[in-house]
Order: sequence, then structure tokens, then C-alpha cells
Amino acid sequence: MSSRGFASDNAATVHPEVLVAIERANAGHAFGYGHDPLTERLHGVLARHFGETARGFPVWGGSAANVLCLRAACRRWQAAICAATAHMNVDECGAPEAIAGVKLISRATEDGKLTPELVEPLIARVGDEHAVQPRLITISNCTELGTVYTAEEVRALADLAHERGLLLHVDGARLANAAASLGCSLGDLVTASGVDLLSLGGTKNGLLGAEAVVLLRPELCQGFEFLRKQTLQLASKMRFLSAQLLALLDGDLWLRCAGHANAMAARLAERLSGVPGVRITRPVQSNAVFAVLPPGAAEALLAEWDFYVWDETAREVRWMCSWDTTEEDVDAFAAAVQRAVQP
Amino acid sequence: MSSRGFASDNAATVHPEVLVAIERANAGHAFGYGHDPLTERLHGVLARHFGETARGFPVWGGSAANVLCLRAACRRWQAAICAATAHMNVDECGAPEAIAGVKLISRATEDGKLTPELVEPLIARVGDEHAVQPRLITISNCTELGTVYTAEEVRALADLAHERGLLLHVDGARLANAAASLGCSLGDLVTASGVDLLSLGGTKNGLLGAEAVVLLRPELCQGFEFLRKQTLQLASKMRFLSAQLLALLDGDLWLRCAGHANAMAARLAERLSGVPGVRITRPVQSNAVFAVLPPGAAEALLAEWDFYVWDETAREVRWMCSWDTTEEDVDAFAAAVQRAVQP
Amino acid sequence: MSSRGFASDNAATVHPEVLVAIERANAGHAFGYGHDPLTERLHGVLARHFGETARGFPVWGGSAANVLCLRAACRRWQAAICAATAHMNVDECGAPEAIAGVKLISRATEDGKLTPELVEPLIARVGDEHAVQPRLITISNCTELGTVYTAEEVRALADLAHERGLLLHVDGARLANAAASLGCSLGDLVTASGVDLLSLGGTKNGLLGAEAVVLLRPELCQGFEFLRKQTLQLASKMRFLSAQLLALLDGDLWLRCAGHANAMAARLAERLSGVPGVRITRPVQSNAVFAVLPPGAAEALLAEWDFYVWDETAREVRWMCSWDTTEEDVDAFAAAVQRAVQP
Amino acid sequence: MSSRGFASDNAATVHPEVLVAIERANAGHAFGYGHDPLTERLHGVLARHFGETARGFPVWGGSAANVLCLRAACRRWQAAICAATAHMNVDECGAPEAIAGVKLISRATEDGKLTPELVEPLIARVGDEHAVQPRLITISNCTELGTVYTAEEVRALADLAHERGLLLHVDGARLANAAASLGCSLGDLVTASGVDLLSLGGTKNGLLGAEAVVLLRPELCQGFEFLRKQTLQLASKMRFLSAQLLALLDGDLWLRCAGHANAMAARLAERLSGVPGVRITRPVQSNAVFAVLPPGAAEALLAEWDFYVWDETAREVRWMCSWDTTEEDVDAFAAAVQRAVQP
Repeated sequence: MSSRGFASDNAATVHPEVLVAIERANAGHAFGYGHDPLTERLHGVLARHFGETARGFPVWGGSAANVLCLRAACRRWQAAICAATAHMNVDECGAPEAIAGVKLISRATEDGKLTPELVEPLIARVGDEHAVQPRLITISNCTELGTVYTAEEVRALADLAHERGLLLHVDGARLANAAASLGCSLGDLVTASGVDLLSLGGTKNGLLGAEAVVLLRPELCQGFEFLRKQTLQLASKMRFLSAQLLALLDGDLWLRCAGHANAMAARLAERLSGVPGVRITRPVQSNAVFAVLPPGAAEALLAEWDFYVWDETAREVRWMCSWDTTEEDVDAFAAAVQRAVQP
Repeated sequence: MSSRGFASDNAATVHPEVLVAIERANAGHAFGYGHDPLTERLHGVLARHFGETARGFPVWGGSAANVLCLRAACRRWQAAICAATAHMNVDECGAPEAIAGVKLISRATEDGKLTPELVEPLIARVGDEHAVQPRLITISNCTELGTVYTAEEVRALADLAHERGLLLHVDGARLANAAASLGCSLGDLVTASGVDLLSLGGTKNGLLGAEAVVLLRPELCQGFEFLRKQTLQLASKMRFLSAQLLALLDGDLWLRCAGHANAMAARLAERLSGVPGVRITRPVQSNAVFAVLPPGAAEALLAEWDFYVWDETAREVRWMCSWDTTEEDVDAFAAAVQRAVQP
Repeated sequence: MSSRGFASDNAATVHPEVLVAIERANAGHAFGYGHDPLTERLHGVLARHFGETARGFPVWGGSAANVLCLRAACRRWQAAICAATAHMNVDECGAPEAIAGVKLISRATEDGKLTPELVEPLIARVGDEHAVQPRLITISNCTELGTVYTAEEVRALADLAHERGLLLHVDGARLANAAASLGCSLGDLVTASGVDLLSLGGTKNGLLGAEAVVLLRPELCQGFEFLRKQTLQLASKMRFLSAQLLALLDGDLWLRCAGHANAMAARLAERLSGVPGVRITRPVQSNAVFAVLPPGAAEALLAEWDFYVWDETAREVRWMCSWDTTEEDVDAFAAAVQRAVQP
Repeated sequence: MSSRGFASDNAATVHPEVLVAIERANAGHAFGYGHDPLTERLHGVLARHFGETARGFPVWGGSAANVLCLRAACRRWQAAICAATAHMNVDECGAPEAIAGVKLISRATEDGKLTPELVEPLIARVGDEHAVQPRLITISNCTELGTVYTAEEVRALADLAHERGLLLHVDGARLANAAASLGCSLGDLVTASGVDLLSLGGTKNGLLGAEAVVLLRPELCQGFEFLRKQTLQLASKMRFLSAQLLALLDGDLWLRCAGHANAMAARLAERLSGVPGVRITRPVQSNAVFAVLPPGAAEALLAEWDFYVWDETAREVRWMCSWDTTEEDVDAFAAAVQRAVQP
């Protein structure tokens, strides 16, 4: 394993400011399970980002945040609509179905993004007892393909959802990257766009391990504490999760980290644009670069650098930049790619 | 909130050696999800404690470790036998039933401890399709009442389990306290006593947040990685969980922390023994002291000190010591108790 | 197997009037899934028994009716309180937990009957996120021990439930026997007593195979059709279930059958009262007789007659009478018992 | 509602021979839950059809049979591959996910039929803990579009399944129609073709309400009785289910009923072939005819005849023939269609 790679933003280190925050939180006793001053303070910070009615619930993991949102939003006979490439659909080992009991109705997309046109036909058979009833539209922003929904695009989906009696959920494992990419606030992509439930990521953006569920409607909060505990996501020493989230969100660390990761991806794409044999396959809108390389090139590169082959058949690879990727990393890697693709 | 209290061992701080270990782990990139050198090293350390066939799986939470063990051990029609006071039975918000789908068959006990005599009658109706089929005996060591199973007592339950085709699980959220209390190794209470599955605690013994499931039989490991991911306990930056567990277990920190917490509880019990109005209600075998106080005394104390009222009707309180409880804390608190119970 | 026994009321035959009703229903095509005239008519008949707000849903099985009531009443973090002897607790192979995900909080009783005094302490830790939250009290009327709740007793439990924000469910697999025993109407034990959900039995009272869930509160009906389908209880040719339920309930067949079964049990108890060696162990209030026999007597009897040994340790047997038990059956069996217990 | 329509084969009547069998079964007492002579006899009859290792389990419903097969075949982290049009995927209100916890990986098809070429790419990411693991291929024969898999086609899927460590399940709600269509035995499409689990239909082929799960591998039977009870499908008066299945299968009633229904569909297709304005959209291989009609025609017909609009957007309708459809029904309906489509 090389010390710096492009495998995933969760292969990166913890930001030093976050470690400092953890150390500072380690003073004296504090009640567990969120009844501590840091978690209290976090609520205020989340309200600043997402509005006064927002309520945040720190959890350990992103898949867990997603499954919690399914359990909070859906009654036992209700389903969620998602893109075929959604993390929920392909990367959570069936947790939505096995843990939440919720069927996912998935739809192929061009670029990982749902649109009202794609979703509308799936809101079907409403009231037909033989069919599971759609309750939630869930999107990832950024998507798993590195693309970004604009606030307008989110709003269009929220409007459709609400017109039809559904809710809109955002898997925001990389929400900061989306906001940094668009130059908007986190709230612009959530509260101001009509989102009802949010899985807010932190671990992929410099934290050690902390995410939050943010509920934008009071009625969704009913019973949510029980759900979090039952879904095995109630941290006993929660102050250390809250400390991380505060370090990220009570200031601009979220933006510095995400903006930098995005910039590194842009730099990588720029370095490789025009290089014969390298075809960038997706719009580079956040911290991911997807590319197709000539046969053998990925294998050669993998001997020295970490990254994932996204689609073996298509020879498509994914290069992920993170808050701690340096310009030197990018330049060295871009040079390595150029060597690897030379005929 | 007072800065030092007796509310819970998870209200305590993180041990400084653990924070140092986390910082050291924060060097360079590392593959996520356990494919990193620290997690690799942890496997060796766990093998040293629990034998070569033991396999460990770091997770975030203790309830999660328990539910994972249920899901790994039980087919869909199988049940677990536990003490009525078991954490699984009363403090996991129905997760065993709602997340694992496993019925708990619970039994009242004197002191939180099951015995073969108590368990045997519950292994009933085997083969009767109308009745859920017992598959697992689960005990907590230490128990939720601070009592400790000896290796012989664990072995007796393991023998019964195995004779009847069942498995034995130990909820070891405080296993270190049990071992420290008995002066034996962790493995003595697990591998050498015939235990099949273990929830190994860390957070209550000085960690920031890390536990592990340890499986003692290879056949139980089949599919376990999928279960961990699906049960929402696969940490992306797992190196930081493994670093904590290594800090605790690759040396004697586990014993120093647990032994100290136990000693503080013994000191507290000793300070209060013979004090009129204070009745210690459970054998003080680990880091908990249970007591009944005169009416009003607990309320007075709670104005200054954190702890839990265990049983309101009986006026029984629980005082929990932790790795960072000092002799000064104990003495000051004992003095406060004495003042509070004075007529 | 003897042609007539005392094993269970579901070992009995189908009442001839029910078979005639099935045949009559077999005329021409009818939409499936309850969109047929007989099911339509059933709704009116149920309204006559249980009031205008009652809504009935035919299903195949009694365990299913119970599990459906759990799924309709309980959110994912809520629990049900029941007697330790409840069918749900001991005879449904863990379906409440595995299918509904609902924890049962059970309580030992004298005679299979809960009382407000027994239930009250179980409505505890309300609002504590670590504890599953009680939502439902469920009772069986008749109980599994043949005892009967009076309307007043049901009302007392309903009042407690409603005061504490809970609901009351009745497992009425043998509700007709209870009403016949008390000389009251079905509605007296349900609607007039404040019951919220009812599993209404038919199969044990002369039907081929049909039960109904009856919901007494409109808000519980929301989504119930989806739940019934999803819980695998939506009969395609539902007209044949409805025809059976109409045969039972649109007239007095329910009362004739249940009254007769009760009378046969009373006759059996009377024939055996005072017989040395036979100890009737439970009040004979419906169609069951429980007794303890001398060692060896049950085994001897079982060579010729079908019935169940209820509790092997206590040598307690259960003799169940049904709509088709005759006076001759009873007298012959009573004579056989007398022979078997002779020293 | 017209007395005879083309809505569904479950809108049809019960075959008179089946009612006679039910009446004959109604003699004397019989142990419940399958411990009766008729169920015993059924096992022999199923062995004749499906081989000596086959084990049959009567259940009430077809969706239930399917969900039971999922629960029997799949561990908690395993998934099933199906056609997008599969009944399991679209007509069971999410029961596979909510009751079995099993994710369905669905695939669009031309004609409702999976092929090895379609399935192969879905058996992916084996061993990757982030991805649910395929365990089962499930097909419907006949399909929901009325098409039929030949024995060779089934065998090809079974071979693929077994090569890759998967199992093959057949949803045989209309298996008799498939066999009648191909002129082969039931076993030819199941045992001889390598099928591992079968949902064997009866209700759509003249029964009142009875289906069976047939397991072709002994290891799948382990624990199945518990699963059936827990999944709420253990009929207490099971003799009446077995009597129906015997009436259908212990002789040629299954073939007479299914063959007739198929013949009626063929007759209807033939009557309408060449009629301007009527386009038959699917191969008529069993008892269903799918057609597209001019705008307004379906609505006009529905005023007099029952049938379902299959796809509103495409104006595609489904006409289902059953064992009791007569030549007169077909001719009258064909004439009505011709009138309705006239310009």
C-alpha cells in the first residue's frame, strides 16, 4: 500500500483540527448518549446550517444514517425510490431490506441523478394493496458517480415528492463536496430545497468517524431516539462524535476540506485531459475522477497506487481525492498515469 | 453536571494512551473497512488472548455486538435464553427482536447470573414446530448487577449448552472487570471456559468507542463480514477502532484500567460499610456498588453527584467506578453519602 | 387415532351449515381479494356485532391475526404486554418477534388472566430511549387455560391501557366460548368493553378455516390492507372465507357451537368431579377441562383417546371439547378416565 | 359483476370434485397441523410427481409459498434474482423484503423469462462484504405474461445456478398450465430440470384455497416446519388443504383443469386473430391472452365483462381463462371484443 492514494476519501487521515477537538472533549466526566454539553452545542450549530426546525442526531456510520432515515420515514408497507447506482441499492449489503424491511424501487440513470421525469412513473399503483407504496425519494448528493445535484434540481424532486405525498431524502455522505462545488451553503441544498431527511456525512471529509441524521420535519422526529438506539447507533460516549461534528461544522472546516478535495480532482482531470489513452468518463464536479484506460494500464498503475476499478468490463477506474490529497500527489499520480497509458 | 461522578463507566474520559494510539494511527492513507495494518495486527493480539481459532471483528457499539452475535448464531426460528436483567433484554430498545428477529426467553435470577438449574427447564419443546427453538444461552460477565461469573460457572453453562446443541454467548462489555476481579486472563473466562461467541467491550474501559465481536468457532464466521456490514457496524476508517483495541489489549492497559475501577468500587463499599442507613445490596465483585439509602438521601446526593437510581421503588442506587475514578473522588463521595444519610 | 377425541377444538369437523355455505358461495365468478358480494355482506354483519366503526378483515389463521394486530398497532420501537401463557408468547414460534419485530413483555399469572395490577408495573420507562416502549396490552379471551374474562375485567384493562396511551387487543380465537359462557354478546366483550383490536376466531368453532381481524378504531385501519397482503394473509378466493364467517356470525351458529362445546366440558367436569385420583386444576369456564391424573393414567388413556399432556412435570392434561363433541363421547371418555385412575 | 369473466383464474369457482373431496375429509376428528391421514397420503402423491426426495408442505397462499422459499433458501445477507415482472417483485406488497428481509435483484426481460445470459451478470461481487450475495434465481412458470419455460430452459438456469453455488426456485402458481402447454409432466419441469424449491399452485387451478411448498433437497427441509409456522402458514385443520391438493394431484384433475383453461385462451386468441384493431401482444402459451385495443375499447368492454387493464399507458389488457371458462364464454366475449373495436 502506498502512503497516499486515490482509493477513497475514507482512506484519508483525520484532520488535525478534529483530533484536537477530540482531545479537548476529553476533560472530565460527561453523561453518555448525547446528554452532554458538546452535543447540546451541536444542535445549535446544525440549526444555523439547516434552520430552526432541523434536528440532528449523531451516529457512527453513513449506511446506518440512511437506514435510519428509511425506518423513520416509511411504514411497514412503504418503499423508497432511488437511482440504480445509489449506495443504498448496491453498497449496503441489503441493509435497507433486511434491517429496515423497505423495498427499494430503483431506476437506471445517465449520471447517477434522478429527475422528476425518471421518478414520476415509479409513483404508481397508489392504493393497490398488492403493491408496495412509494413513500420516499432518495438521492445522493454528490452522487456515487461524482456528479452534483443543483439546488434547483433538488427542489424539483422535492416538489414532485410533496405533490404526491412523498418525502425527499438526501444521502449526503459527500454533501460538503456538493456545496463546495456549487459555491452554496449546506442549507441551500437541503432546507432551502425542500429536503425532508438528510444523512449528513463527516467521515469522508476529515473526521475520524461521525455522521448525523438531520430531520427537517418535526413529525419525523417522533420516536427517532428509540429508532437510533434500536438500530444500534446510539453512541455511549457521544461527546466524541459531537466534538468531531462541531470541529467540522462550527466554522468552515467542512468547506476547506471539501473544497480542497474537489480542487485536487479538478487538477487531476486537468492534468490528464488530452492525454491520449485516458478518457474521463463522468463530469468532474466533486472529488472523484472516473476514467477509462487502455487494457493493462490500470493493472500497471495499481502496482504502485491505490484506487478502485469501478467497472471491470468497461475498464473504468475511479480516482478519489480527499482533504489531505496534495498537489504533489496529484502531479505524481498524473505522471504515473501518463507513463502507464503510453503505448 | 459534576466533573467527576459515578453515573457510568461510559461517562469517563478516554485513557491518554488510547488518544496517543489514535494519533499514531493517523499517518498516511490506509484502506478502509479493516484492510489496514493495524486491524491486521489486532487479529494477532486477539489470537493471543483467545486462541488461534478466535476471530475478531471490531465494531462501534456493544448493543450492536450483541445483536450481531444473535444474528450469527440463530436461524430465523431460534431463540436465546438470558437473565431477566440482561442488557439485551431491558436496555437495547427491542433490537434483539426488531433487528435480529430473535425472541429472548428470559429468567428471573437472584444476582443477575444464570445457572444450569435455571436454564435447563427453558430448553424445552425441542422439535415442536409451534415453539421457538432455543439456540443460544447468553450471559453478561460482569453482570448488570456487578456480579461476576467464575470460569467454572461459565464452563458449567457452556457444558449444558453444548450437551443440548446450543451455544454460549458472553456479553463482555465489562469482561476486563470480571477477569481483573478473578485474577485470571480474559481467555480463561472465554476460550478456556467453552464460550462460543463474545461481545468484547472497550468503551467502558477507557476507549473512545470500540468493541469487538470475537467468534470462537470457525463455522460461526461464515458470512459474518456480510452480517457486520448489513447490521450497520462496518467502520470505514476502521484503523482507528483497531488502534484503540490494540492500545487496550496489546499490553496490560485493559487490566490496569479494570483493576483500578474495581479497586475504587471496593474502596467505596469499604468506606460505606457499617454506615447506618447505607445498605449495600449486591456483592461488590467488580466496578459497581449497589445500595439502598433512606428516603430522600439519593435525591440530596444527586444535587451534587451524578449516578443512577436503579430501582425507584426499592430506593436502590447504582454507583459505577471507572478507570479514571480517583481515591479522592471516592473519599469525597463516601463522605457526601455519609452526610446525606444522616438522620 | 380415534375418530372422536379431546385433543383440540381444531381436530373437530366442519359444521354442515358451513359446508353448505361454501357450496352456495361457489356460483359464478367473483372478483378475488375481498371484492365480492359475500365479503361486502360480512362487513354489515360484523358491524351488527361490533358496532358501526368496526372494520373486519378475513384472514386464514389465528396466529396471523395476532401478528397482524401487532404490526398494525405497534411502531418499530413499541412492545406488547401479555400473559406468560399467551398463545403469542409460547405457541407462535417466535412470529411476533421475527415477523412483526415486536418484543413481548410477559407476566406470570395465576389463571392465564392479566389484571391492571399485574400490567401496571410493566408500563415503565416511558420515554427512556434504551427501553422498548409498551404500546399494546394483549389478552386471550377465553385464555389458554380455559378461563374467561368478564366484560368488567376487560373494561378495567382497556381503561388502564387508554389512560396510559396504550391499546387493548383481544386474541379471540375462542371469543364465542367466552361470550357463551358469560351469556353475553360478542360485542359486550369487545366494543362495549373498550377493546381496540380483535383477533376473531372461527376455525376452532366449526369453520373449515377462517378468522378475522376486527379493528375498532378507524385510525388503526390506515394501511391495514397493505399489511394483510404483505403479511401473507390476503386470500385470493376470499369469498369462501367470508361465506364461512357469515355462516357462523349471521345468525346464531357461533353461539350454538360454542355453547354446546362449553356444555360438554361442563358435563365432563361434572362426571369426573369427586372421582378419586382426578383433580380438576382450572376453573371450567369454557370448553376446556384441565386435570391432574395419577402416574401412568394419562399414558393408559392415550392408547385409546386423543388429548394433550399440558404439563408433563405436573402430570396435567388438557381435554378440549368442540362443537361436535357428543354426550356419548363425554360419557364414554369419563368412564374411561374412571377406569384409568382406579388404583 | 358479470357471472363469468376473464379477470383472473382466481375469480373462478371451485371444481366440484374438490368440494366433494372436502366433504369426504369432514369425517371424524383428525389431529391438526398436518398430523392426519390425508396429509400423510399427500406426501406419497407428491413423491410420485416430484421424486422420492421431494417433501411437500401445504400452505394457504401463493405469496406465502414464495416468501417461505426465500426464507428457507437465503441466509440473512443473501439475495434473489428475478425478472422485473415477477409476482414477487411487483405483486406481494414488499413481503420478500419486509417479511423475509431478502433483497430482490430484478432484471428487465422481453417476455417475462430469465435466461442464463440475463442472469449471469447479476451474479456479481461474490465475497464483497458491501454487496448482498445472490443465493437464489427465481422464475415463474408460467410467467406473469403467460409465457412458458420449457424443461430445457429451466435446466439451463438450474445449471447456471448450481455452477455458481446458487439455487433455483420456481413460482409455480400456474405450473399445471405450463406442463399442460408443453405436454409434459409436472416433474419434468421441476425435478428433472434441476429445480431446488417449488411454490406449487392450486387455487388458480380449481381449488378453494391451497398451495404447497415442495422442497427438492433434503437440506432445505431443515427447520422448514418452524419457518412455516412462524411465517403464519400452518393450517390447523390442514386435512382440508391436503384433501384439495389430493383431489387435484392424485389423478389428472390438474391436467384437465389446466389443459382446458389453456385451450380456452387459445380459442380466444384464435377468434380474435386477424380482427382489425386487436393486437395480441404476447405469445399465447398458457391461459392468458394479452392484447392492445384501440382507445376506448377496453372501457366499453369493461362495462359488461370483468378483466384487468395490464398497462394503462400501452392500453394493454389481460384476459385470463380458467378451468370453468366455457366455449360459449369465449365466443360471446370474442364477439363483444369485435363489436368494441369496430371503428
